Amino acid sequence: MPAPLITLTTDFGLSDGYVAAIKGVILSRTPEARIVDLCHAILPHDIMQAAFLVKETFPCFPSGTIHVVVVDPGVGSKRRIIVLSAHGHFFIAPDNGVLGGLISDGGMAFSVNRPDLYLQPVSHTFHGRDIMAPLAAYLAGGHPPESIGDALALEQLTALQLPTPHVDPSCRQISGCVIRIDHFGNLITNIGFSDVQQLGTPPFSLSLSVGQHNIGSWYENYSQSPSGEPMILVDSNGMIEIAINQGDAARTMAVTIYDTVILSVC
Amino acid sequence: MPAPLITLTTDFGLSDGYVAAIKGVILSRTPEARIVDLCHAILPHDIMQAAFLVKETFPCFPSGTIHVVVVDPGVGSKRRIIVLSAHGHFFIAPDNGVLGGLISDGGMAFSVNRPDLYLQPVSHTFHGRDIMAPLAAYLAGGHPPESIGDALALEQLTALQLPTPHVDPSCRQISGCVIRIDHFGNLITNIGFSDVQQLGTPPFSLSLSVGQHNIGSWYENYSQSPSGEPMILVDSNGMIEIAINQGDAARTMAVTIYDTVILSVC
Amino acid sequence: MPAPLITLTTDFGLSDGYVAAIKGVILSRTPEARIVDLCHAILPHDIMQAAFLVKETFPCFPSGTIHVVVVDPGVGSKRRIIVLSAHGHFFIAPDNGVLGGLISDGGMAFSVNRPDLYLQPVSHTFHGRDIMAPLAAYLAGGHPPESIGDALALEQLTALQLPTPHVDPSCRQISGCVIRIDHFGNLITNIGFSDVQQLGTPPFSLSLSVGQHNIGSWYENYSQSPSGEPMILVDSNGMIEIAINQGDAARTMAVTIYDTVILSVC
Repeated sequence: MPAPLITLTTDFGLSDGYVAAIKGVILSRTPEARIVDLCHAILPHDIMQAAFLVKETFPCFPSGTIHVVVVDPGVGSKRRIIVLSAHGHFFIAPDNGVLGGLISDGGMAFSVNRPDLYLQPVSHTFHGRDIMAPLAAYLAGGHPPESIGDALALEQLTALQLPTPHVDPSCRQISGCVIRIDHFGNLITNIGFSDVQQLGTPPFSLSLSVGQHNIGSWYENYSQSPSGEPMILVDSNGMIEIAINQGDAARTMAVTIYDTVILSVC
Repeated sequence: MPAPLITLTTDFGLSDGYVAAIKGVILSRTPEARIVDLCHAILPHDIMQAAFLVKETFPCFPSGTIHVVVVDPGVGSKRRIIVLSAHGHFFIAPDNGVLGGLISDGGMAFSVNRPDLYLQPVSHTFHGRDIMAPLAAYLAGGHPPESIGDALALEQLTALQLPTPHVDPSCRQISGCVIRIDHFGNLITNIGFSDVQQLGTPPFSLSLSVGQHNIGSWYENYSQSPSGEPMILVDSNGMIEIAINQGDAARTMAVTIYDTVILSVC
Repeated sequence: MPAPLITLTTDFGLSDGYVAAIKGVILSRTPEARIVDLCHAILPHDIMQAAFLVKETFPCFPSGTIHVVVVDPGVGSKRRIIVLSAHGHFFIAPDNGVLGGLISDGGMAFSVNRPDLYLQPVSHTFHGRDIMAPLAAYLAGGHPPESIGDALALEQLTALQLPTPHVDPSCRQISGCVIRIDHFGNLITNIGFSDVQQLGTPPFSLSLSVGQHNIGSWYENYSQSPSGEPMILVDSNGMIEIAINQGDAARTMAVTIYDTVILSVC
């Protein structure tokens, strides 16, 4: 049976050797580990972006996968490093909120305390390499998370203030925001199609305002929309998305991350 | 024996979790699969660029490799997804021409129709994850392409209008274009050295015009040329290339993709 | 036992198929090989940058790892390709100085001469694919480096002029330079903490000047420093680093690579 998968999410970019250093340490300890890059283009220190991306992507991996998330502005300080066991997966990260969106009933968390495993001497600026990589290798080697430190009550973990949409049934309106802008310039909102369904059952008409724009065209896929015209659709994770067929919605519409989105159901 | 290789070519970039999502789905289905990134920097929706890059690079992989090409502006529409078996390799892509340059005598094509394999529910905007990744995993698991859908005659596949050079033996001239600009700024043309050989046998003199430039210096490798001076050479895939030793030919010469190239043999 | 690891360091970027071509050739020859990207963002032809990055990162990998370094402005010329066995690792690169920082007593070097292994026909512009990839696969297959060519005395290898710091005990001063600027804008100098320790034993005060800036604040980690204020710390490889907590020191301080750094111990 292949060893568990390990995914890596960092704000390291790809222009240094930092990501390779983490991989080298993991493969030194657990040679049969299989490592997949989840994303290394998190903006420096952007805990929210990393939290959202990991939450969105981890379900594509098999249960038992170990997700290492190194967005760690407090590296070297007294902040905890934690292992969270939730949704059938393991997550290793600093306790700075980056795993806050993944806490679930039935999950378990542990405060990492295994200096015997760390790369020595432990640096003050690269715990991804010195602490988290050895831990990932250790879990991938089949050790249970209970063995890496003391249990933490989930309430002890640092929460993440992921912006949540506000549903107003009386006005049949939802106010949310742009939570992610992808490589194509598509605007992913924090409003789920399930939120929309609270306001009525299809067929219904939607209209959406963001920045200076009002959009009333709702399609299933990009190619149904005339080029150049903003459209609403449900993205591949069930979230409301604003896009332009073969265009860059963010640039064309001058919308940026966290801009307010108001969606009305008629 | 190791499982077949799977390569991934997309226009997704590396700033989202989309590439990781595809890998997660593949490895959930066929844990022993080995995945290699071919390229994720295809310009959004640039079918031609993807077609050329895959055609140029796939022969470096062992036969039996499964190449997944997700450049898919028509995602969610009625366009087919196909598996092409050609040159001893397998190619999975939307039928939008991106595999058009790989069709060969003796190849076989199949129209994908295996909803039982797809990730459910199938989204309208991410068939790379929901359809093509499961298919790649299925083929990597050893299933024959015949089992994924109905056979298609090769003529039914969407053709690709890859620009082809025009050889004029009477003028001893070939007109072609710049088909790819690489990371170094080297200009790769669609004129093969084999086209040049149709006009005579070496030794002969070449001169080439592109944009405002006339180039008469033909070398075997970059370092033979004085710095700063445009040169002609045969690239590593047998194509005529224009380069500047330790310089960026595209920027220096203000040449862009698809600019006309006229090559004369004296 | 898993096959040896192979790392790849190039100046190829990720926008072409060149890196994938190397991987394809390796996996065609030694299917069980495990390949890790060390870095592909070396500036075109920047031998010094590649040399420094490989030297800094290779120790994270297990002994026996094969490091392929393709920064090769002289490709196709008469320059040698070498295999260096040093520090328990193998390094394959053109003999242009890129391995110069890795030469050590007890190391062994070999001049590659195994045309029977090369991808045929060998191109004049891509020896990473045609010569170095087959060699890496061959070593990963368990063949000893002695079998790839004639032994070279270490003095025959092209030296690298890695800038070294100058320690002046009488002035209690070290003059060095910025040797690497990372993705975060942190400035890594060529001055080791071990150099500083030659000038005294802690606790002592440090002050550092670079560009127009004088910095007197020395911390263990980023988060100890007030935001926006330049700080000195010891980086994760034991080198003196200049950083700004959650900021970009290079941009804020307008410092560039190789700028002089003067460090004084009081």
